[in-house]
Amino acid sequence: MTDFRQKALDYHALPTPGKISIELTKPAESARDLALAYSPGVAEPVRAIAENPEDVYKYTAKGNLVAVISNGTAILGLGNLGPMASKPVMEGKALLFKRFAGIDSIDIEVTHRTTQDFINTVASIANTFGGINLEDIKAPECFEIEQALIERCDIPVFHDDQHGTAIVTAAGLLNALEIQGKDIGKAQIVCMGAGAAAIACMELLIKCGAQREHIYMLDSKGVIHTRRTDLNEYKQLFANNTDKRTLQEVITGADVFVGVSGPDLITAEDLQLMAERPVVFACSNPDPEIHPDIANAARDDLIMATGRSDFPNQVNNVLCFPFIFRGALDVRASRINDEMKLAAVHAIKDLAKESVPQAVLHASGSQALSFGKDYIIPKPMDPRLCSRVARAVAGAAVASGVARIAMPDDYFNDQ
Amino acid sequence: MTDFRQKALDYHALPTPGKISIELTKPAESARDLALAYSPGVAEPVRAIAENPEDVYKYTAKGNLVAVISNGTAILGLGNLGPMASKPVMEGKALLFKRFAGIDSIDIEVTHRTTQDFINTVASIANTFGGINLEDIKAPECFEIEQALIERCDIPVFHDDQHGTAIVTAAGLLNALEIQGKDIGKAQIVCMGAGAAAIACMELLIKCGAQREHIYMLDSKGVIHTRRTDLNEYKQLFANNTDKRTLQEVITGADVFVGVSGPDLITAEDLQLMAERPVVFACSNPDPEIHPDIANAARDDLIMATGRSDFPNQVNNVLCFPFIFRGALDVRASRINDEMKLAAVHAIKDLAKESVPQAVLHASGSQALSFGKDYIIPKPMDPRLCSRVARAVAGAAVASGVARIAMPDDYFNDQ
Repeated sequence: MTDFRQKALDYHALPTPGKISIELTKPAESARDLALAYSPGVAEPVRAIAENPEDVYKYTAKGNLVAVISNGTAILGLGNLGPMASKPVMEGKALLFKRFAGIDSIDIEVTHRTTQDFINTVASIANTFGGINLEDIKAPECFEIEQALIERCDIPVFHDDQHGTAIVTAAGLLNALEIQGKDIGKAQIVCMGAGAAAIACMELLIKCGAQREHIYMLDSKGVIHTRRTDLNEYKQLFANNTDKRTLQEVITGADVFVGVSGPDLITAEDLQLMAERPVVFACSNPDPEIHPDIANAARDDLIMATGRSDFPNQVNNVLCFPFIFRGALDVRASRINDEMKLAAVHAIKDLAKESVPQAVLHASGSQALSFGKDYIIPKPMDPRLCSRVARAVAGAAVASGVARIAMPDDYFNDQ
Repeated sequence: MTDFRQKALDYHALPTPGKISIELTKPAESARDLALAYSPGVAEPVRAIAENPEDVYKYTAKGNLVAVISNGTAILGLGNLGPMASKPVMEGKALLFKRFAGIDSIDIEVTHRTTQDFINTVASIANTFGGINLEDIKAPECFEIEQALIERCDIPVFHDDQHGTAIVTAAGLLNALEIQGKDIGKAQIVCMGAGAAAIACMELLIKCGAQREHIYMLDSKGVIHTRRTDLNEYKQLFANNTDKRTLQEVITGADVFVGVSGPDLITAEDLQLMAERPVVFACSNPDPEIHPDIANAARDDLIMATGRSDFPNQVNNVLCFPFIFRGALDVRASRINDEMKLAAVHAIKDLAKESVPQAVLHASGSQALSFGKDYIIPKPMDPRLCSRVARAVAGAAVASGVARIAMPDDYFNDQ
């Protein structure tokens, strides 16, 4: 076992198992404290909430509490290993929620038979929380699950593997296209992968101006086209009316490649078929569709992004999900709608164009950073992300009518 | 609004809503930390758990995590106010778990249509946790729910309103009978109330030696007897083959009164009908079936216990539930069986007979305490409870074959 792998196991096991704990936010030492916290004092907030249900946000932790919920059917790039094996990932997500946005977050692993069982279970416990982050649920079930839960719950439900990935990808791509001098409305786009992340990325790019007919999506059987009879309803939306059947045919002349598939699936020769000044997002984790060194050696006019932290332009969901929930919770949004997602895209995109303070460079372990082909997207450790993205998202929630409380006048005005 | 009621609301609302938060137990500052906590490092514990499911106890917080789960159908003495109104109570229980036994605990409020829906929901999320504490679920549904979940889950499931109350009541009653010089096997027992707590108390007393035919249980319609046709299956177990129909008839000559019903339901005159040296547990909260001052004025040969902290002999579930879970979790018990419950009864009972250290007196705000009619049960703030009860419960789990790991040699040997 490598040193890093052993360190990862030790990190999880020592000195206590896991990564999160539950702590008290109120004094609980004296008998008097306990009389306020539990019987008889607790009867007062109980009565208040029974009379006015919104008081649950005033007297309990609900308003800052997000459940990270999975069934373990699509864990990282590791596949369907079941709910228990997903627990370290879900605790990790809870850790990121707290670390980046101060959100209390607990993981819930669901064991179920049918998709409907999963939906019923999550809907039944949803009132406990201020929001629900779905995670590592395989496609196509994840689409039905998310849609059903959005309809049944009056709190934000967000499948991060879809929308978190899509938002960060869109932010980076819009900047990359701007630098390359290309118009998203005219861009020819190849999307390798047809799972949850791929479909959500393409749908969001369309909302950002991409043309559906300019998108060529590939699954494990090749190009998704209108003659195929093996497509689920979600892939059908991307069935292109084309005679092209191979990666090489669709990547020829393409402006954009987005990979959310698997490692080492494209070659230097494939990249050489692309149009001038291409944009290549090879986001498979931990190993991208093409290694950045190979891609950069293949041509010097491309802009490259990956999921890797050891190369420029890391596409990382942590740029988005803590802050989109921060904004949604802070105005008590009933859902996370397209307006809020697009606000997050633009907040992330715009932040990359600002000058980078010394503190951010330090936190990111970076030398100078300035907007350009090696810096199209903010660094995950950039502390400005929270205020910028949360404020944009909260504002969009208010403007689009899904907020239940106003945005405070001084909300994140530290920016 | 009284000063105390306002203080209770303020305690819950300020400076942040609620009483618990989720915190990180591992470093999460640097990019290196995050690479261990999340991608790519988290893949290692995922793979380990996929290969060996018990490793979930090694690499995640599961083993010290208890869910406090309710549907809000029987909140304190307030009734069926629904899941949201129960949230402050469930958070309060989580606070007590942490405060008294160092157990991480999160509340889950379940919204459901049928009892089977509730059972399915809890069973579906159970693997997330090391144990499940059911709370404030009304009878008779609570019996079916608990039984079904015990059968479906391989972690401890414990309905505290039943068994926590029963264990503490039994411990106190056994000591009271000893002081009064009475044999539980011969004691005539009146139980006012026929809900979850009442039935569990009487079942546990029978396991401690009480005779079922010596028990007279009363519900809102009077004595539960064999001619009644309106009894659910749980009450039927206590249908006494008697001609007595009223409280006055059954309390005449009785040795023990246990009240788990409502305030002010018995009188000084009723107590005067009891046998010599009676034991009166008036446990309705917050107001007992008879005020201790009235009871003590009625006769001077009784031993009295209530749920009130401002009188001697407080019957309080917090004497038991944190520690029975502590013991069960620490040997990874698959359930909490009768052996473990009886071990808890005897540990609590025996602790009251020991001399009380100065530190305990100080923590309890008490003057001298010694075993006798005004001290039949330990004080809730007695820090010795955790080691004594947890050790007894863990030992009973191991001895009865439900523990999945051994009790460490040095387990709570500080006693």
